[in-house]
Amino acid sequence: MTPETISWKDDHVVMIDQRILPHKVNYVVCRSHYDVAKAIKNLVIRGAPAIGCAAAMGMALGALRIKGKGTAIFLKELKKIGGVLVRSRPTAVNLSWAINRMLKLAQENAHQTVEELQQTLVAESLKILAEDIDTNRRMGLNGQSLINDGATILTHCNAGALATGGYGTALGVIRAAVEAGKRVKVIADETRPFLQGSRLTAFELTCDDIPVTLITDNMAGHVMKCGYVDAVIVGADRIAANGDTANKIGTYMVSVLAKEHAIPFYVAAPLSTIDLSIKNGGLIPIEERDQKEVTHLSGKIIAPQQVAALNFAFDVTPAANVTAFITEEGIIRPPYQEAFSSLFNSR
Amino acid sequence: MTPETISWKDDHVVMIDQRILPHKVNYVVCRSHYDVAKAIKNLVIRGAPAIGCAAAMGMALGALRIKGKGTAIFLKELKKIGGVLVRSRPTAVNLSWAINRMLKLAQENAHQTVEELQQTLVAESLKILAEDIDTNRRMGLNGQSLINDGATILTHCNAGALATGGYGTALGVIRAAVEAGKRVKVIADETRPFLQGSRLTAFELTCDDIPVTLITDNMAGHVMKCGYVDAVIVGADRIAANGDTANKIGTYMVSVLAKEHAIPFYVAAPLSTIDLSIKNGGLIPIEERDQKEVTHLSGKIIAPQQVAALNFAFDVTPAANVTAFITEEGIIRPPYQEAFSSLFNSR
Repeated sequence: MTPETISWKDDHVVMIDQRILPHKVNYVVCRSHYDVAKAIKNLVIRGAPAIGCAAAMGMALGALRIKGKGTAIFLKELKKIGGVLVRSRPTAVNLSWAINRMLKLAQENAHQTVEELQQTLVAESLKILAEDIDTNRRMGLNGQSLINDGATILTHCNAGALATGGYGTALGVIRAAVEAGKRVKVIADETRPFLQGSRLTAFELTCDDIPVTLITDNMAGHVMKCGYVDAVIVGADRIAANGDTANKIGTYMVSVLAKEHAIPFYVAAPLSTIDLSIKNGGLIPIEERDQKEVTHLSGKIIAPQQVAALNFAFDVTPAANVTAFITEEGIIRPPYQEAFSSLFNSR
Repeated sequence: MTPETISWKDDHVVMIDQRILPHKVNYVVCRSHYDVAKAIKNLVIRGAPAIGCAAAMGMALGALRIKGKGTAIFLKELKKIGGVLVRSRPTAVNLSWAINRMLKLAQENAHQTVEELQQTLVAESLKILAEDIDTNRRMGLNGQSLINDGATILTHCNAGALATGGYGTALGVIRAAVEAGKRVKVIADETRPFLQGSRLTAFELTCDDIPVTLITDNMAGHVMKCGYVDAVIVGADRIAANGDTANKIGTYMVSVLAKEHAIPFYVAAPLSTIDLSIKNGGLIPIEERDQKEVTHLSGKIIAPQQVAALNFAFDVTPAANVTAFITEEGIIRPPYQEAFSSLFNSR
């Protein structure tokens, strides 16, 4: 079993430190929404659904510590807390989705006392976490129908238990296929620069005895050409209304390679990752991170001193490269614009 | 100026240790053909043309140390020395090309005494090195015509001075463009697992004040999509008769991405890299190296203990993905089979 990603303990939040897995299993304790924002920014916790859960708990932590009296002041302060959290990372929409859900709930319960509101928000953050795990299990059941017995699945980055409240999105689909009795093998891209593939995906799958083989990101084309890959399944950080999908840098490249080799390319994501307010992928903000993440590894320099580097954390896969979306509400096939509209309208 | 890749000193060969550049500038001394074979195998020296120069010097070193008397024994021993060297790495054809050239020269001079043959072989190895640098300069002059002033060139791995006797193949073309007064910028893929891009290409270009920006291999698709790349230039380890090209793992992926974005994809290589005895890329032997090169970096583990990894050192880019070959004899355009045939027949 993969260790728990995030949990609520009395009046603080505990996260497994994903920066140092799998070499060390350490936990980071967050006692305020500032701690949570810092943990999100510094990649202690990452993965769009996990960031959503963390943000909800950050809102609850912040709510517990609001000093002012009266509901009006409380709601005003809560909004500020949301503002701090939402600025921690720009690309994953689950962050603002969770913050907005918490804010809306507080507003709807403006008749409660401050103490009641605090408990309401703590309970809601736990509900978001539980829902996320449930969502992933339903996504897994839906998605595993796409995996044949004996298949080898290539995945990029980590869209597993560690990227979510638990169970995982892309890896949840693989877990569900294994639970359904299918023999599934995984090829994991190591996913530079943060090595989520080698450090987290390989770790999770090893914990669950699912066969996993690691490759460097630049081997993806060759292994596809050799016929080693039956399908690609990845997660998502934000899906635009037309189906364009922001995910970890390199996902776009994998989608182009999958298209070249006529390999199905699936995106597994909860509906909370779909952002209908964004028309297309060109409008999704793409985070650029510190160049040192590319030029250094574990604090040690791996390039010449002071050489320039680009560090785009995400890229956008055009909807046309996505064979289907795997969601908790079922498999969504193109045309996505229409499918998303009718799905959200019917909710 | 980039430090010298390889040189002959009295009765030994000195190579810069490419495993630890750019952090340390150390030299490895080879006193026998066994030392040279080990240096090639362990990546002290790498890059097809540099491996060719090293193999020639390895033959000369071995020749100097042949104990038996008489030319017949000498030639027999020299063949064995070639056998040791040729087994050091399988993919780069320049290795067997250089060994065969040395063997053929010795056979043609069977009338010489052993001492004379030894001097003939030492002189030939120096000639191969000098020719390689000259070849690269001619290749550069031919190739720079393809680069526009202000262009940004993406390159993969290191096809520079360090991969050759000097000046470089792909980087030689870039150097020639700069010498012709063009402003050229380079985007270098870091090239996992051995990081030839970040450690060697970025180092070389920094030495020569040519602007270079590092990316992780998985950013290549995104930077192309953003319009940052005007052309791709890479080297080659072996080119089949039909133009299929083996080069560093990830080159194939870059070629697919270049095709997707209608970006010209050039291969810069000397004629000694073209192997007319191999019909197509499917027949080129692809080296698989120790998994630890993927799971470890600088001796430190970066993945879970004992996780499986694939480590293909090369892949094959289909001829159809190559816009043109840049050689010392000019730019070669498709159809390659015919172009190669007429080029080799006219020599």
